[in-house]
Amino acid sequence: MSRWEPNARGRLEMAALELYAERGYDQTTVAAIAERAGLTERTFFRHFADKREVLFGSGMVLEELLVRSIAEAPVEASAYDVVAGALVEAAAVLQGRAPIATKRQAVIDAHHELRERELGKMSSWAAALVEALGERGVEPRLAGLVAQTGVAIFRVAFETWARAGATEDLADAVRTSFAELKAATG
Amino acid sequence: MSRWEPNARGRLEMAALELYAERGYDQTTVAAIAERAGLTERTFFRHFADKREVLFGSGMVLEELLVRSIAEAPVEASAYDVVAGALVEAAAVLQGRAPIATKRQAVIDAHHELRERELGKMSSWAAALVEALGERGVEPRLAGLVAQTGVAIFRVAFETWARAGATEDLADAVRTSFAELKAATG
Repeated sequence: MSRWEPNARGRLEMAALELYAERGYDQTTVAAIAERAGLTERTFFRHFADKREVLFGSGMVLEELLVRSIAEAPVEASAYDVVAGALVEAAAVLQGRAPIATKRQAVIDAHHELRERELGKMSSWAAALVEALGERGVEPRLAGLVAQTGVAIFRVAFETWARAGATEDLADAVRTSFAELKAATG
Repeated sequence: MSRWEPNARGRLEMAALELYAERGYDQTTVAAIAERAGLTERTFFRHFADKREVLFGSGMVLEELLVRSIAEAPVEASAYDVVAGALVEAAAVLQGRAPIATKRQAVIDAHHELRERELGKMSSWAAALVEALGERGVEPRLAGLVAQTGVAIFRVAFETWARAGATEDLADAVRTSFAELKAATG
């Protein structure tokens, strides 16, 4: 019999991240996560498909945000500026999840497969950006170049931020990185 | 009793790529690869640690080439140009392996884990570039930005080349991509 649990998703997420850090990701079971959160396994599976999705579930939401941002950008904006703007928006959303982000990054950094999965997620973002740029009439070759570059820039800024305790403003950091690359290629 | 086999490594590599394409990577055993190449399993293991290394063994050799190229670049060259130059050198080496590259890319594209492993290799290249740029006195933040961006640019050019049958000049394609990004950020 299921009942409404206040902020079940957030509690499960925090419990999972604590356990991944304490015991290691591989050693943590869904049962243990549910117990730590004071919830049932059944509640866990209403929110997440498995223990990996706790770490990567929000990636798809952000991917949709990126696509929408690119579709809504001014027609006259360059491909580079449009991608920069979309990733700054994503950064602003992640800023609101700062306490989670630091813990999450430490878990991912400690686990080879999770690091590769994280790279796979970024690759999926890049593919979504390419498609969204294509809709704007950006030629595929340039779209690929700008999308992959943009995601690389974002990742450097994001990881630096998360590993340093997520105390800076991530949106500012991403904005600055895009400006720095402009300067570096000038 | 081992004896010298002419071009054993190349024969094993080609046999492996054929079998990965025909049967799938997961379904291919080292025994089958050795048999197809007309060699023994023992010979296989003198050249490769396992069947995955057939696909990723040359990555480390290229990583060393990148680091050397950066160390030897003119002092006055910018971080961006130094990274571009190193990756153009790597591209020239890969150009000599064009028949392998196309087959290899098809195998990797068809297999989720191998794609993630390939991304991991690129990430290792980027880390090596950051360190090599650091030796030149490039500030870590800028080094990270240029290294990740450079690797992203290289990857787009490389995959486009390999998927299109590796008939173009890869070094030219990489050089052009770096110039195009300069133009896109301008």
